[in-house]
Amino acid sequence: MIIVMNPEATQAEIDHVIERVVGAGLKVHISEGKMRTIIGVIGEKKLMSQLPVEAMAGVEKAVSVTVSYKLASREFKHDDTIIDIGGIKVGEGNLTVMAGPCAVESLEQLMLSAEVVKNAGAQFLRGGAYKPRTSPYSFQGLEEKGLEMLAAAREKTGLKIVTEVVDVQSVPLVADYADVLQIGARNMQNFKLLKAVGRADKPVLLKRGMAATINEWLNAAEYIMNEGNYNVMFCERGIRTFEDYTRNTLDLSAVAVLKNLSHLPVIVDPSHGTGVWKLVRPMARAAVAGGADGLMIEVHPNPMEALSDGNQSLTPENFRSLMGEVTAVAALMGKISV
Amino acid sequence: MIIVMNPEATQAEIDHVIERVVGAGLKVHISEGKMRTIIGVIGEKKLMSQLPVEAMAGVEKAVSVTVSYKLASREFKHDDTIIDIGGIKVGEGNLTVMAGPCAVESLEQLMLSAEVVKNAGAQFLRGGAYKPRTSPYSFQGLEEKGLEMLAAAREKTGLKIVTEVVDVQSVPLVADYADVLQIGARNMQNFKLLKAVGRADKPVLLKRGMAATINEWLNAAEYIMNEGNYNVMFCERGIRTFEDYTRNTLDLSAVAVLKNLSHLPVIVDPSHGTGVWKLVRPMARAAVAGGADGLMIEVHPNPMEALSDGNQSLTPENFRSLMGEVTAVAALMGKISV
Amino acid sequence: MIIVMNPEATQAEIDHVIERVVGAGLKVHISEGKMRTIIGVIGEKKLMSQLPVEAMAGVEKAVSVTVSYKLASREFKHDDTIIDIGGIKVGEGNLTVMAGPCAVESLEQLMLSAEVVKNAGAQFLRGGAYKPRTSPYSFQGLEEKGLEMLAAAREKTGLKIVTEVVDVQSVPLVADYADVLQIGARNMQNFKLLKAVGRADKPVLLKRGMAATINEWLNAAEYIMNEGNYNVMFCERGIRTFEDYTRNTLDLSAVAVLKNLSHLPVIVDPSHGTGVWKLVRPMARAAVAGGADGLMIEVHPNPMEALSDGNQSLTPENFRSLMGEVTAVAALMGKISV
Amino acid sequence: MIIVMNPEATQAEIDHVIERVVGAGLKVHISEGKMRTIIGVIGEKKLMSQLPVEAMAGVEKAVSVTVSYKLASREFKHDDTIIDIGGIKVGEGNLTVMAGPCAVESLEQLMLSAEVVKNAGAQFLRGGAYKPRTSPYSFQGLEEKGLEMLAAAREKTGLKIVTEVVDVQSVPLVADYADVLQIGARNMQNFKLLKAVGRADKPVLLKRGMAATINEWLNAAEYIMNEGNYNVMFCERGIRTFEDYTRNTLDLSAVAVLKNLSHLPVIVDPSHGTGVWKLVRPMARAAVAGGADGLMIEVHPNPMEALSDGNQSLTPENFRSLMGEVTAVAALMGKISV
Repeated sequence: MIIVMNPEATQAEIDHVIERVVGAGLKVHISEGKMRTIIGVIGEKKLMSQLPVEAMAGVEKAVSVTVSYKLASREFKHDDTIIDIGGIKVGEGNLTVMAGPCAVESLEQLMLSAEVVKNAGAQFLRGGAYKPRTSPYSFQGLEEKGLEMLAAAREKTGLKIVTEVVDVQSVPLVADYADVLQIGARNMQNFKLLKAVGRADKPVLLKRGMAATINEWLNAAEYIMNEGNYNVMFCERGIRTFEDYTRNTLDLSAVAVLKNLSHLPVIVDPSHGTGVWKLVRPMARAAVAGGADGLMIEVHPNPMEALSDGNQSLTPENFRSLMGEVTAVAALMGKISV
Repeated sequence: MIIVMNPEATQAEIDHVIERVVGAGLKVHISEGKMRTIIGVIGEKKLMSQLPVEAMAGVEKAVSVTVSYKLASREFKHDDTIIDIGGIKVGEGNLTVMAGPCAVESLEQLMLSAEVVKNAGAQFLRGGAYKPRTSPYSFQGLEEKGLEMLAAAREKTGLKIVTEVVDVQSVPLVADYADVLQIGARNMQNFKLLKAVGRADKPVLLKRGMAATINEWLNAAEYIMNEGNYNVMFCERGIRTFEDYTRNTLDLSAVAVLKNLSHLPVIVDPSHGTGVWKLVRPMARAAVAGGADGLMIEVHPNPMEALSDGNQSLTPENFRSLMGEVTAVAALMGKISV
Repeated sequence: MIIVMNPEATQAEIDHVIERVVGAGLKVHISEGKMRTIIGVIGEKKLMSQLPVEAMAGVEKAVSVTVSYKLASREFKHDDTIIDIGGIKVGEGNLTVMAGPCAVESLEQLMLSAEVVKNAGAQFLRGGAYKPRTSPYSFQGLEEKGLEMLAAAREKTGLKIVTEVVDVQSVPLVADYADVLQIGARNMQNFKLLKAVGRADKPVLLKRGMAATINEWLNAAEYIMNEGNYNVMFCERGIRTFEDYTRNTLDLSAVAVLKNLSHLPVIVDPSHGTGVWKLVRPMARAAVAGGADGLMIEVHPNPMEALSDGNQSLTPENFRSLMGEVTAVAALMGKISV
Repeated sequence: MIIVMNPEATQAEIDHVIERVVGAGLKVHISEGKMRTIIGVIGEKKLMSQLPVEAMAGVEKAVSVTVSYKLASREFKHDDTIIDIGGIKVGEGNLTVMAGPCAVESLEQLMLSAEVVKNAGAQFLRGGAYKPRTSPYSFQGLEEKGLEMLAAAREKTGLKIVTEVVDVQSVPLVADYADVLQIGARNMQNFKLLKAVGRADKPVLLKRGMAATINEWLNAAEYIMNEGNYNVMFCERGIRTFEDYTRNTLDLSAVAVLKNLSHLPVIVDPSHGTGVWKLVRPMARAAVAGGADGLMIEVHPNPMEALSDGNQSLTPENFRSLMGEVTAVAALMGKISV
């Protein structure tokens, strides 16, 4: 940490800051400029984070030099993490596609979806059994019945299952049925839930919060990893901005940023990220060209009948086109040494 | 809901949309312009929200005419809700001040804070026993021990207690100790938690999510009220924007907006809303002049020793000045018929 | 336009609104629901835009059904606009690359850059002779001398020149030297300047304002086209959001949105869009895969010596890698029927 | 500036950075931690701003310690600037109110407005003769005729005139008629225009850009002051955020931030800042309680007839109520030593 003192700070104020820092078990390195004094602080991150430096008299600002996450960082683990999910390897240069309806609505709808997803070449079936909805009066999901249907679809098609878990209590139940536990955007900083999936023995797909910085997102992964579960995938799904044509603004640059800062795989969800089905195919291609390890796509056998997010779901036909396109882009990416 | 058809929509497409709407048990009202057809949809909100209209061929956009919350709306209850908390009436034209440290750190720190808060004239002691923190390595709160200390401070000073609850499981425990249950910004759309406090018998202070629209916030209150708990207060605490001088951008216009749309009381937290202690006093005065029913302020007997958010905490002296100022503004507001 | 009346609006209020609308030369279409009355307004856009409907008593909100731009819209011109710039066709399925230093610094720097750009296969040389800078104390550009250098580089390499024009007075001068006039992000709503380049006989590259919605951007293009200059290209260069790792958030979904709403070509600038040179290559690939007609890339013979934006400039070597990659993606796109 | 080297930076990279810094005429101060080396850079701001430090090999990030504006800073001038405009002193503890219609529409409308404004106790008449509008088809202002009407209104009422100037060429003309030159939000970084009003002999009201940080805003003021015109007032008018209930989010904390960083007066415009007339009165009160030196308010003799922004204009009656309220708050503020 670097402490920048105010140009008008007195020597007594400077001394007091130094005293506090040293008293906390940290070392200082002082640099006196013509205008102001700068104090470099060296030592344990933990001790630093508990010093309310900016509240001290004479301090103009404090600048953090190091990040607060460790296990999620590229410095901790240099090589890309590859997550093996029953033989499917996420992050190994293959493109992983997770697709399906927003919500599980009925066995028939799910089975139809699963077939479409399977035949088009995807490896995962997605579908929400627990649905966080803005209004209490909207459809909230089939809960355990939905989980059973997902298991039945896996049974029939061999697709792996990714589905959302929304509270601590249902983690064991969802982990019984799912191959991957999804943490939704609204729960990215539900720390109790992060800790709970950190103790589960299933990989976790961690969606980005609607207003979460990349730094906060990496720290959310750290919560999971700190409990022992190192199998974490990020999922970019759009951030909230002033632009109102799209439901969210899909931040594709986050993919390359995460690849620089972390060793964990990155998935992109252009369906929620745009909220407009016409934009899903171009943004899926863009995500893969930008370095994403996988995609999460909403497909519905009949979007016009969907109980949730029909406006952003692809028809089976559109999804097949998408699969052809992203497979071609992924093949090309295999030839690009990034 | 109003459905705006594309100028190039065919008659078959228009007919199909009408058929779907009518088939769902709703009525239509058709208006044919020179350029395009517009279809008004009349009937139950619930039925409408399940129609994926924008996915239908030929539809350009659908515009919602009504809001999805009901119990929280001014239309449902015309008069201001006044919440009686052991004799203290929030929303009755008096200014309610909730103050104290960000986190409960020790009995001594809390007792000193409580005295400062009490002597300056506030009615509530705030203090987190459970602290949601960005990094897993930061101080996470004293948990039940912290709750016991809060109860001890109430015992001694008579101050009411407001403290955060972060998961479903601890709702009964926190409700045992607290006078008001606080839902933090990160949990504003933790719907399971909203339902749980909706079944508790304590009033709820609902902080605004960092990227939550006012509409989503009203719907979050609806989740609580829909379970039977009508004693909900909103707490504006800043939203996330591009401006980086302040930690958040305190959206004071939300106070007057909520007063127009809802009957529930509105509290403002300028400490988290700005993140800079120098800005707390002016923004507290502004909040009251803008119509807030109360304030939530971070005070620490010694901000420079605080384990959390010291940079935004007021010293006892500053807090006493603030109380004098906001009391004067509140008195003035009593003379303004808003 | 659709006018939604308040549920509590009186008949007199409804009548008054209708009277005002009809009095303005427009037609109404009334739809009476159980809860509220809705008034459809039919007629000239211009007349509508001058009615302050939301200020009328009893009105809850007014919803615009049509867009306010015309010449820029896909409805006005169904086929893609192809802009022929001395034989180079922007928007014809080929990828157009504009590259060069942020600012023209010296003849030597520019000539070196131009050679790198030319040899790597780009068609346009970019370089600012007039530089809008946040601080008045930063380097402001070489002005006319810089334009002369750009012309010299064109002479030598055959590259076309794109350069920014920052005020009405210098439009004729810049148009004398440049092949394409660039309007910078800060001037996207400098309407006098838009009108001036609308009267120039050179194509215009219109950068998106840092907080401009796509709708405002289309209207800015309309300002130019309304003066007679139909050769307008959009250039996405990132929008301002809360994320602070990148300088801006590159909104790639804007490409596909513009392709749906307009017939004009779309260029993407990942250099300003991210502000981080490491992110330029992946985002350039993503832009092309997402449907962009071209790229604008900052290249500097020696980024470490650059007087402006060195942190986001590519080295010649990196730029050659980028060209190889985006050419491959563009070739693939040629096989995708979007 | 502080340069933070990467933990993996080689000694050669560190040496090269030092060499470059020293070669640029700056001094270094090196601090070697266990994990990484930190290089403090001391010397002329100008020299620093031209070093592309982050492009150098081994550099993780560079942190600016000082601000780039000087004349606008509180460090340059400790006491508040008071601007005397024909005897009216802005910034002297009095509340300055500028009010009037968004656009000058006719002599009759303006005279009626001026009377309302005068009688309610305001000191300035506002009104746009040049109107920057999103669409080229909206009303663009009466231009010089509008200026003449403003002068006539001044003649009759004694009110001072504040009106917008939108391009370099019309600065002399507008300065002939106006008492204060307004720079609109869209032109906050139109640097040629800033320089032009910097050479005019009239005070300038500088509106904040829709996505401008406070730091950029201060630098925009610096552009004006650097040309010799020190009479600059800031005008907060809302920033663009994700919230869509209000037209913009009025950032009232900017008032206190500016008061800390600068000596210049600060005005607040709650009319554009909210876009909703019902919110104007509460936000005007809040602005004054938060420390604003003045207000800019839209008033129209008949908002329902306004050619521009009628939805946010106050009726004469509402404006009179507002004046009563803000006068009371201002009187109270006179008793608060901030």
